[in-house]
Amino acid sequence: MSTTEVIYDLITRNLQEVLGGDTIKNLLIEGKNPKCYWGTAPTGRPHIGYFVPLTKIADFLRAGVEVTILLADVHAFLDNLKAPIELVQHRVQYYSHVIRAVLSAIGVPINNLKFVVGSDYQLTREYNMDNYRLCALVTEHDAKKAGAEVVKQVTTPLLSGLLYPGLQALDEEYLGCDFQFGGADQRKIFTFAEATLPKLGYRKRAHLMNAMLPGLTGSKMSSSDPNSKIDFLDSPAVVRKKIKNAFCEEGNIAENGVLSFVKAVLIPISKLRIERQERGEATENQRPFVLDGAPPSTVFSIARPEKWGGPMHYSSFEDMEQEFAERKLHPGDLKTGVTDALISLLEPIQKAFEANVDFQQAAKNAYPPDVPPPKEAKKKKV
Amino acid sequence: MSTTEVIYDLITRNLQEVLGGDTIKNLLIEGKNPKCYWGTAPTGRPHIGYFVPLTKIADFLRAGVEVTILLADVHAFLDNLKAPIELVQHRVQYYSHVIRAVLSAIGVPINNLKFVVGSDYQLTREYNMDNYRLCALVTEHDAKKAGAEVVKQVTTPLLSGLLYPGLQALDEEYLGCDFQFGGADQRKIFTFAEATLPKLGYRKRAHLMNAMLPGLTGSKMSSSDPNSKIDFLDSPAVVRKKIKNAFCEEGNIAENGVLSFVKAVLIPISKLRIERQERGEATENQRPFVLDGAPPSTVFSIARPEKWGGPMHYSSFEDMEQEFAERKLHPGDLKTGVTDALISLLEPIQKAFEANVDFQQAAKNAYPPDVPPPKEAKKKKV
Repeated sequence: MSTTEVIYDLITRNLQEVLGGDTIKNLLIEGKNPKCYWGTAPTGRPHIGYFVPLTKIADFLRAGVEVTILLADVHAFLDNLKAPIELVQHRVQYYSHVIRAVLSAIGVPINNLKFVVGSDYQLTREYNMDNYRLCALVTEHDAKKAGAEVVKQVTTPLLSGLLYPGLQALDEEYLGCDFQFGGADQRKIFTFAEATLPKLGYRKRAHLMNAMLPGLTGSKMSSSDPNSKIDFLDSPAVVRKKIKNAFCEEGNIAENGVLSFVKAVLIPISKLRIERQERGEATENQRPFVLDGAPPSTVFSIARPEKWGGPMHYSSFEDMEQEFAERKLHPGDLKTGVTDALISLLEPIQKAFEANVDFQQAAKNAYPPDVPPPKEAKKKKV
Repeated sequence: MSTTEVIYDLITRNLQEVLGGDTIKNLLIEGKNPKCYWGTAPTGRPHIGYFVPLTKIADFLRAGVEVTILLADVHAFLDNLKAPIELVQHRVQYYSHVIRAVLSAIGVPINNLKFVVGSDYQLTREYNMDNYRLCALVTEHDAKKAGAEVVKQVTTPLLSGLLYPGLQALDEEYLGCDFQFGGADQRKIFTFAEATLPKLGYRKRAHLMNAMLPGLTGSKMSSSDPNSKIDFLDSPAVVRKKIKNAFCEEGNIAENGVLSFVKAVLIPISKLRIERQERGEATENQRPFVLDGAPPSTVFSIARPEKWGGPMHYSSFEDMEQEFAERKLHPGDLKTGVTDALISLLEPIQKAFEANVDFQQAAKNAYPPDVPPPKEAKKKKV
C-alpha cells in the first residue's frame, strides 16, 4: 500500500460506513490533512462509553487529521432547560478535561485536536441567517425524517427537534470540516446534511460512522442511570462490581457489550500502545493489555489462575470471539480480563484528575450533588 | 367619559377584537403612553389595502400611542429566497417612504412613529438564544396551529412556517411593545404569543385586531396580481378604471369591498380631517370627503349629476350602507364617490413622491422591471 492508502485505511478502519470517502482520499493525495468534526452535548457525566468514539478519534489524530470537538453547549442547555446555562458552561469545562485526559491515556498526541464551544459561533448573525435560510428551504417532513433516530420520539414533539438536523448540517460548514464523524444512528442526519448544504451554496461533506454498540454494563449505556454506567473516575472496586453485574451470557456473541467493548476499545488501544512501545514512545502508564510472557503477536491477555488453565492470550479479536462462541472462554474470565484492562486504562485518567485542581473544580461545579441527573442528551453521538 | 376613557375608546374603536384591553387601560390611568407594534414584510409593492391598518394606526398616533412599525426584512427575504437581500433592503426603504407619506396624507402627526428593521435585532445573540429556548418549549403541534391562518398551507410545509409564530412572539418582547396590532387573521398567532412569552419569563402583551376586509378591487386584494390592486402611485385614470371594474353588486352589502373601504378607510379619514379642519390644523391637501354645500354633519359626499338627483351626503357609514341595501344608492354612484375620494387621498402621497428624489430612487431600486413579482408574503398583516 502507498502511504496515502495506509493513512486512508487508518482513518476509515473499524467503521460501519463511510460516505464520501473519495473526498478524503483526494485530500490525502494532494498532501493535505483532512479536517474532522465530532460533536457532543455536555449534559450528563461522560461515561466510559465515550471510549468508543475517542478510540476512533485516536486513529484520526494518528493519521494527521485535524480534529475539532464541538462541545455543543447551546444544545445541552436546550435539552434540559431546567439546568441553568452556567451549569452547562461548567460541564463544557469538565468534558474538555475528560476528553483530553482520555486521549492522552490512550496514547495519542493531541496537538491536532481543537475544542470549539457551540455558543462561540452558533449565535452569530451569519449562522442564524443561514439557519433561517435553511428553514425556508427544508420541509417539516425532511427535517423530521432526518432526526427520526436521534431526536427523542415523543407524542408531542418539540420544535427544537426539527431544528437540530439543520443546525448539525450548518456546523459542518462553520467548523470548516471535510468530514463529520458520529455513530451509525446519525446516518439520516448525515445524509440530510449532504442534501442540504449544497442548497445553501456550501459543499457536501463526507461522513464516517462508527457501529452502534451495546453498553458495557447494560442493554444501553445511558448517562441518566448512574448504576448502568462506569464513570471515568470510578474506583477499581466500583469498576469490578459494575462489570461483574454486566450482561455477558456464555457462548452468546450476538448480544455482548463486554465483547463489543474489547473489540471497539480495548484491542485497538492495546495495538496502538504496542506500536508506541516498539517506537519507544509509550510511557509507563501506557502498557498494552498483554501479560508478561505472552507470545509475540498477542494483543490481549486475560489472567487466569493456573488451576483453571493459566493466562489466555489472543492475537486478534476474532480469535477471542471464536473461543467465546465455542465456550472455551468463560464469561467470568472475559470479565476479569476486561476489568483488569479497564482499571489500567482508567488509572492515568484518574491520576490526571488528581493532579489537576482545575479538573477537580470543574467536576464539582459541573455536577453539584443537589442537581438531578439530566435527561439523556438528544444530540450525543456516543 | 373621562379623558382616559376617551383615549381608550380612540385606541380600540372600529376593531374586531381586543385581547388584554385592561393592560392598556391601566397604562392610561398611570398617565403612560402605550407602545404598539405592527409588522409588515416588505415584499411586493404596497397597495392601497395598506390604508386599512394605517387608518387604524392613525387612531393610535392621535391617542398618543408610541407606534413601532417593524419592517420585517428577514421574513421578506425568507419568503422569497430568489430575491437577493439587497433588493429587500431597497424595499424596506420604499415601504418606509410609502408608510410615512400615507400617514402624513391621512393627516396625523408622526413624531410618535418609529420604524425598526427586523435584521437590526432578529439576528443578535440574545434573540436567537431566546428563539432556541422557545423552540425547546413549544410543540410542533402548537406552532402549526398558531400559524394555520397566516402561513401558507401547502402539502409540503417548510420549517420556516413553524418558526414564524415564535419569532413574532419574540418581536413583542424585543420591540418593547404593550400591544401588538394586526388583522383578525393573526388571532391564533396572537394567542400563541400570549401563552408563550410568559414561559420564557416575559410578560404577555395585549392584542388589537382589525376586521379582515374584502379587497377594494377583487375578491382578495393581493400584491401578486398587479391588475387586482391599486398602487399608491396609480394615476387618477388608472384608479378610475380599476374601481370601475371592482365587484360591487346592487343592494349587496354582505360582500362589498367598495363599501368596506368606505367604512374602514374613507369615512374615518374624512372624520379625522373634519376634526383637524375645525381645529385649524388641516392643510389644503387634507380636505374631508365632503362636497361644498353639504349639511353640517356630513362625513361623506358623493357627486351625482343634477339629472340623477344631485349630490348625496351621508352623516355615517350606517346611513350609506342602509341606502345601498335599499338600492337608493346605486353601485355606479358609490364607485364615483369612492373614486373621487381615493384620488384626492392619493394626491398628497403622489406629490410627496414627486418631490422626493430618495423616494423615487427607492421605488426604482425596490421594483426593477426585470424582477418577477414575489409570492404573496406570509407574514403580511394587511
